[in-house]
Amino acid sequence: MAFQIEADLPPGLACLKSVDALLRCPICFDYLNISMITKCSHNFCSLCIRKFLSYKLQCPVCNTQVTEQDLRNNRILDDLATNFQAARQKLSKANFDSPPISPKT
Amino acid sequence: MAFQIEADLPPGLACLKSVDALLRCPICFDYLNISMITKCSHNFCSLCIRKFLSYKLQCPVCNTQVTEQDLRNNRILDDLATNFQAARQKLSKANFDSPPISPKT
Ligand SMILES: [Zn+2]
Ligand SMILES: [Zn+2]
Ligand SMILES: [Zn+2]
Ligand SMILES: [Zn+2]
Repeated sequence: MAFQIEADLPPGLACLKSVDALLRCPICFDYLNISMITKCSHNFCSLCIRKFLSYKLQCPVCNTQVTEQDLRNNRILDDLATNFQAARQKLSKANFDSPPISPKT
Repeated sequence: MAFQIEADLPPGLACLKSVDALLRCPICFDYLNISMITKCSHNFCSLCIRKFLSYKLQCPVCNTQVTEQDLRNNRILDDLATNFQAARQKLSKANFDSPPISPKT
């Protein structure tokens, strides 16, 4: 839920972009925070989806009917998001510490 | 379920090891293939967990009681595993082919 969208990945890590995107919440676009999976297999931050369901009982992605009782923790996504962010930072640092990147046109 | 454990990550990508490990099935140790999530939030290949449950109705990781009806697809893990493997291959290749940053296109 934090209002913090990280800068783009450095060019050398562009191939990780789709992994990065999958680990983000479709509601707040930040990395998933206490991930909950719906019966329709979509994932959101716990707070984001609960707030949404208090307004409308359907999945924000595919419109399938969803209730709060249907939600299930998807803890592996929390671990993946945490570990991916750490790796991303290390790789970016390695990328920037070594030869400077010439600006792209 | 394939009998194919990839070689270790190159040293420059060691920080991705925990992400790699999370995307593997605790039964077959290969990347998750048609991921199913249990109520206890553990994930397995569809075939691996069904085979296991035909023998014993509990989670192979935490021993919680599990039935086949409790299983839910965790499709995001399939996408993550696919995309991560592709990225891993590109990064490994870049690591071996030339210094980390090479001008592209
Ligand atoms: Zn969110
Ligand atoms: Zn949905
Ligand atoms: Zn498996
Ligand atoms: Zn379990």
